[in-house]
Amino acid sequence: MIILGLDPGLGTTGWGVIRKEGNRLSHIDNGEITTDAKLPLANRLVILDEKLSAVLDHFRPDYAAVEEVFVNKNPQSTLKLGQARGVVLLGAARNRTPVTEYATRLVKKSVVGTGKAEKEQVQAMLRILLPGLKLAGPDAADALAVAITHAHHFRG
Amino acid sequence: MIILGLDPGLGTTGWGVIRKEGNRLSHIDNGEITTDAKLPLANRLVILDEKLSAVLDHFRPDYAAVEEVFVNKNPQSTLKLGQARGVVLLGAARNRTPVTEYATRLVKKSVVGTGKAEKEQVQAMLRILLPGLKLAGPDAADALAVAITHAHHFRG
Repeated sequence: MIILGLDPGLGTTGWGVIRKEGNRLSHIDNGEITTDAKLPLANRLVILDEKLSAVLDHFRPDYAAVEEVFVNKNPQSTLKLGQARGVVLLGAARNRTPVTEYATRLVKKSVVGTGKAEKEQVQAMLRILLPGLKLAGPDAADALAVAITHAHHFRG
Repeated sequence: MIILGLDPGLGTTGWGVIRKEGNRLSHIDNGEITTDAKLPLANRLVILDEKLSAVLDHFRPDYAAVEEVFVNKNPQSTLKLGQARGVVLLGAARNRTPVTEYATRLVKKSVVGTGKAEKEQVQAMLRILLPGLKLAGPDAADALAVAITHAHHFRG
């Protein structure tokens, strides 16, 4: 099965696609969708939606996974994140891809073995779990981590 | 010209449609889109998107207007609002309806004449400005108020 992990953000949305065959995971692709902060908000959301649709159409994932958000930033950042996250969740669901949310602790535990891992540890483990991986960036790494979490925890 | 005002929310999104001919405003319709809190988030966003699309297709507004958000609620509420707001802004922009955001103070000032008006004053003025108005609810009232703001302030 094909799993799409997503790390939504208005400026940068990370995505990562993996394949699970039995217990074996393999990397398919990862990337980051960016939108220009100079554009009006609604236009940025349209660009995010269109680029995400292209990823969904290209890889046709069976499942999508996103991290749950525990909001601790400033309110305007939370609002921006929410707007991007709404568009990303809508995009996946409109494409009839079931979306599951996973807690950050569970994502870290699934990849590194502890819920308190640093970002660097997560990225190092991703390179071990998915040989040959080239990361598009930190948000793509977070997206792959949540895809792996889905591979470990989903009981379909 | 036809103006669609929107007051986005995950549980309830208010909408209101008015016509501006010269300096004359008239009410066309208003309503509220609700989503069931028991459904998964992604499904609620799809329902919101579909119902908003139906409103856009039916009334074919020339412009859409939403209130700017000054976030002062708790972070989880802000995230929910953001997710709904992202879907609403996307829906309008995808439909090639230009979306303008207006500050809350300006909305109140446009309808009541002061930036510090209470909700009741806004609703009372709406009934004066738009004779024959029947309000679907408080969120529909807020949506009509921002539509009127656009009618007063937009210079196309």
